[in-house]
Amino acid sequence: MTPAPVRARTIGPVRIVGAGLLGASIGLALRRLGVDVILDDISPSAVRLAVDYGAGRAGVAGDSPRLIVVCVPPDSVARSVAAELAAYPHALVTDVASVKLAPLGELQSLGADISRYVGSHPMAGRERGGAIAARADLFVGRPWVIANHDRIADRRAADSALEALALDLGAVPVELDAAEHDRSVALVSHVPQVISSLLAARLVESSDAAVGLAGQGLRDTTRIAGSQPELWVQILGANSAAVVDILKHYRADLDEVIGALADPQAPGALRAVAESLASGNAGVARIPGKHGQAKHFSQLVVLVDDVPGQLARLLTEIGSIGVNVEDLRLEHSPGAQFGLAEISVVPEAEQHLLAELERLGWKIAGAQD
Amino acid sequence: MTPAPVRARTIGPVRIVGAGLLGASIGLALRRLGVDVILDDISPSAVRLAVDYGAGRAGVAGDSPRLIVVCVPPDSVARSVAAELAAYPHALVTDVASVKLAPLGELQSLGADISRYVGSHPMAGRERGGAIAARADLFVGRPWVIANHDRIADRRAADSALEALALDLGAVPVELDAAEHDRSVALVSHVPQVISSLLAARLVESSDAAVGLAGQGLRDTTRIAGSQPELWVQILGANSAAVVDILKHYRADLDEVIGALADPQAPGALRAVAESLASGNAGVARIPGKHGQAKHFSQLVVLVDDVPGQLARLLTEIGSIGVNVEDLRLEHSPGAQFGLAEISVVPEAEQHLLAELERLGWKIAGAQD
Repeated sequence: MTPAPVRARTIGPVRIVGAGLLGASIGLALRRLGVDVILDDISPSAVRLAVDYGAGRAGVAGDSPRLIVVCVPPDSVARSVAAELAAYPHALVTDVASVKLAPLGELQSLGADISRYVGSHPMAGRERGGAIAARADLFVGRPWVIANHDRIADRRAADSALEALALDLGAVPVELDAAEHDRSVALVSHVPQVISSLLAARLVESSDAAVGLAGQGLRDTTRIAGSQPELWVQILGANSAAVVDILKHYRADLDEVIGALADPQAPGALRAVAESLASGNAGVARIPGKHGQAKHFSQLVVLVDDVPGQLARLLTEIGSIGVNVEDLRLEHSPGAQFGLAEISVVPEAEQHLLAELERLGWKIAGAQD
Repeated sequence: MTPAPVRARTIGPVRIVGAGLLGASIGLALRRLGVDVILDDISPSAVRLAVDYGAGRAGVAGDSPRLIVVCVPPDSVARSVAAELAAYPHALVTDVASVKLAPLGELQSLGADISRYVGSHPMAGRERGGAIAARADLFVGRPWVIANHDRIADRRAADSALEALALDLGAVPVELDAAEHDRSVALVSHVPQVISSLLAARLVESSDAAVGLAGQGLRDTTRIAGSQPELWVQILGANSAAVVDILKHYRADLDEVIGALADPQAPGALRAVAESLASGNAGVARIPGKHGQAKHFSQLVVLVDDVPGQLARLLTEIGSIGVNVEDLRLEHSPGAQFGLAEISVVPEAEQHLLAELERLGWKIAGAQD
């Protein structure tokens, strides 16, 4: 059922520079398809570890890679790509960093031959851990951005090689101009990181009573605030112009809300707040849902005792009722030995499911369109 | 297994003013315990509907309620509470609005006898829908704040009556001073709403390509931006001082990040950004987890085909392996006919579970401590 290709589209040898989570995961996936994978890393033990895991082989004199994938930390990408372009004058070089314009500029100022460089950005979500955490399936179902620029010599060949790589890894290739990529990820990834971190920072000096009232809303808005500062400071630094541009608009909107709430009795104050909230409604509706469509589901909240197997039994019984679970979230009650499972279903199924679950003895703690 | 009391602690009659979702849900729960519930609403048809659902009876001349629960929209609370205090000089009156200081002040300026008023705030999460969406279990496992103030005549009796009500509804009573309540919910609920709405508002004019790259991070940080503006403008307006205070601190932090990223090469710039991100780490660690403790879990990401019953089968098999699922999140791949289930387990169980799931043929798309 999962889109696993049986034959490699990628033509090797593929050289992977940086044998961490991303590099070793790419190596593992390509090796399973029989592609010759050469691993390199400034740490010889990282190479040995990744080789042990089956992610590829160490390089030997005379290796002539067709494709080089640079998987080093963001702030080393440009120097590493430049070195690869110089060392392998017939290879196409890509990288996997989450910012695309800054390395391109840096490569140009280093005098690198960027006619054989096309950046990549696999939106794999997990950006930490070494080869030990590597998985051949890490990229399955994730967008893989191919970041074009106007100095590529043979754009068709380059696109085709990177599409082949993305498809071999089970990813969904998406072509974007490097500048548009950076503006896009600033909006959907880098700015949300800053906004979430600054919100979570407000909790540092809060009372225990206050955090004790935290509900799912706060948990959701601050979840990514748990991300690694070391990595994110590199990403934000490398995409600072696009991030600052959006943050300044955000600050202007914030100033308006602060101004309105500072004097909520003033004419137009609450209207300004209401319009900000309504813009939030409109914005969140633009995020594609399951299968790429923004779709409206109904939610049922069901009590699940905190013993193994309860959630499985609930889902099995929902399956028997013949209803597909479109989404599922778990919440935990403070101090209670049970959780709340929020089940999303198509609106037409809600009343039937609710009646059947009650008949089966489940406690429903809320229903909402 | 669920903490359902068999005998009512609450002494009736209980009069409920406002027969919407919250009022009708309270009525349903109390009726199941045999408490005499009198329903009132400015809309006679809302009363009839709630009576039809079994949430109580219509009032008659000579009714003498012991406890009155005002469940009207936030901006009508004070006037309604004042009217009830005057009409029933022997009753204790509470309300369920999510702000507690503003109605108290308004009651005082209305000259109401607040010695018989104690505010409540059930953190029930769902604040929309009428009697038709009401559930006796709506409050189960949720904190129920009892907002004390220093003008209550018989505080012990008042606390005890409200604790009885909260426990009868399956909620967890939490006593907080009205001002501390308002500062607390500003931090954990009202400010996150503003922050999330303003972030989502940035998506309104974004490109389709950008929103197409949206991952779980953006979905989480903007989920509550889908909330009702009509309700939230009342809440924010009523708790504006506490909200503005926190938003101003937030803006100062945001200014610092904008300043640092505007010139990321300047000495100290990246350090300032890193410290903001680290404060976010520290803040998010303060949010209590399941069973009230902040606990560290390992995550496995498993591919689940998008057909009914697959998720149930996965959870059943995890149950057979003998591992308890501590948390579960579903993600959907763009355009793909499968989802990614992120399973949280205690770290000691991770390697065993991973090996067993692979043996059973599940595809693991990532693992992370």
